[in-house]
Amino acid sequence: MTKTSGTTIPRIREAAQRGAQIVCLKELFNAQYFAKSQRHERFDIAEPIPGPTTIAMQQVAKELGVVIIVPIFERQARGVYRNSAAIIDADGSLLGVYRKMHIPDDPLFNEKFYFTPGDAAEDDEIDRSSAVARQASGFRVWRTRFADVGVLICWDQWYPEAARITSLLGAEVLFYPTAIGWHPKEKAEFGRAQVDAWRTVQRSHAIANGVYVAVVNRVGHEKPIPGQPGLEFWGTSFLADPFGIVIAEGSTGQEEILVGEVDLGRMEEVRRNWPFLRDRRIDAYAGLDRRFID
Amino acid sequence: MTKTSGTTIPRIREAAQRGAQIVCLKELFNAQYFAKSQRHERFDIAEPIPGPTTIAMQQVAKELGVVIIVPIFERQARGVYRNSAAIIDADGSLLGVYRKMHIPDDPLFNEKFYFTPGDAAEDDEIDRSSAVARQASGFRVWRTRFADVGVLICWDQWYPEAARITSLLGAEVLFYPTAIGWHPKEKAEFGRAQVDAWRTVQRSHAIANGVYVAVVNRVGHEKPIPGQPGLEFWGTSFLADPFGIVIAEGSTGQEEILVGEVDLGRMEEVRRNWPFLRDRRIDAYAGLDRRFID
Repeated sequence: MTKTSGTTIPRIREAAQRGAQIVCLKELFNAQYFAKSQRHERFDIAEPIPGPTTIAMQQVAKELGVVIIVPIFERQARGVYRNSAAIIDADGSLLGVYRKMHIPDDPLFNEKFYFTPGDAAEDDEIDRSSAVARQASGFRVWRTRFADVGVLICWDQWYPEAARITSLLGAEVLFYPTAIGWHPKEKAEFGRAQVDAWRTVQRSHAIANGVYVAVVNRVGHEKPIPGQPGLEFWGTSFLADPFGIVIAEGSTGQEEILVGEVDLGRMEEVRRNWPFLRDRRIDAYAGLDRRFID
Repeated sequence: MTKTSGTTIPRIREAAQRGAQIVCLKELFNAQYFAKSQRHERFDIAEPIPGPTTIAMQQVAKELGVVIIVPIFERQARGVYRNSAAIIDADGSLLGVYRKMHIPDDPLFNEKFYFTPGDAAEDDEIDRSSAVARQASGFRVWRTRFADVGVLICWDQWYPEAARITSLLGAEVLFYPTAIGWHPKEKAEFGRAQVDAWRTVQRSHAIANGVYVAVVNRVGHEKPIPGQPGLEFWGTSFLADPFGIVIAEGSTGQEEILVGEVDLGRMEEVRRNWPFLRDRRIDAYAGLDRRFID
């Protein structure tokens, strides 16, 4: 485990002491965000699941009796590396792995260079009771001790399809470990609108699906290469209720532990009052499997 | 045409004088919102398309050189009534009809009693160059003189699927004629959160798809039945740009003409910078055609 993750476990203990039952770490939690440029040696950071980091986290989960969502750079095979999250139950068992499905590629976010996209689930795998061995395909929900959780990673957060399918699988909370920030030269002009768009689209997943949405973003300015402006991650982690109301929110600049409360009764109440799931036109959505229709 | 629509044409003229090129009226524009209760005689309000109201609007569109979106209660056949919108081009031609796909049914919104849902498009009809005669099935886009527009109606606004498909069909602006309001007994406790959720989910369609979103809501307190509290429609019509920024917004209480400007160059710029359409996982969205996956 890296020095970074060495500071993480004390924070998980602190979160548990403050009452947290499900702990979600930020995207690729145990290193700086390394995809700012294309460097072959950075594949060395990747490790298998299970592997040293997730095994250590399994021990912590069991000791504290908390669920932990552990996003790391996964080495699945030589040449097959993933942007993944291990889901560890409160008894320390590894429930499965989510592999980021939507991979971005933009200046300072060279993710298509590093990450093989997550596999689509086979039709017969769209079944949340499926075996752990098949738990790393497509969109998934895991029944943890405290709630049924879905995990999606960063760029996935812009896709209503991902939130919808994960909600239809029975998710009560959608967790989004994230690494999003400002290009320093854009911050003054566009920074506020960018954060607002990001917050809005994720609150909308809560509203459209009647689920809790928990977003865990990096924070702080990372400058890995001398002379490069680096990225300033904008924090603003938050928990939204099934009506899209933000019930806990972090700062834009400070590393912190954000604790919020999930009320599953609230979820049922919201879905009864604004019953969107009742009226979906599943006979009319064929166009969603097209990239563009012209 | 009813008295209500008799006041509408002068307003369309005024909008055109103020520079409007595409005019969208509110949902079921030419009557009070009649679905508050179930009354068989209210089917008498319905009329065919083309019919008296849309023919009158075709004349106005041609005279003023503006596109008009005309939402009315459509009588398609004896016993087949729809919540529809006619799309009329600036030369007065009737381009087609959108029939509301997602039909709500909740206290004071008895829409499943009145409205047959819109038909799903056949696969071979997902083609925006198809003949006018087939233009009343499923989600659609119409090439008007001034922009390629999609029309969705009210409850459709809660469904990311509808916004996505209409955007993939090439919509530059998604219009949402709407009739949403407060139950008077809920307004104090929930009113603000309801408007915020409604605004948020529609702004998110703009963001997720990189399109303009124009929402045209009813306004004012309608009390059709003595002793019934009626509904207070909350106005707040708005135009959001492809980044979700609200660039024009109406009040919650006043009837008004809201004019905003669409910049198609802005749409291309936003989609280049946050290229969500590039990275959709169309191989992995099979779950979207299920109501729930358990």
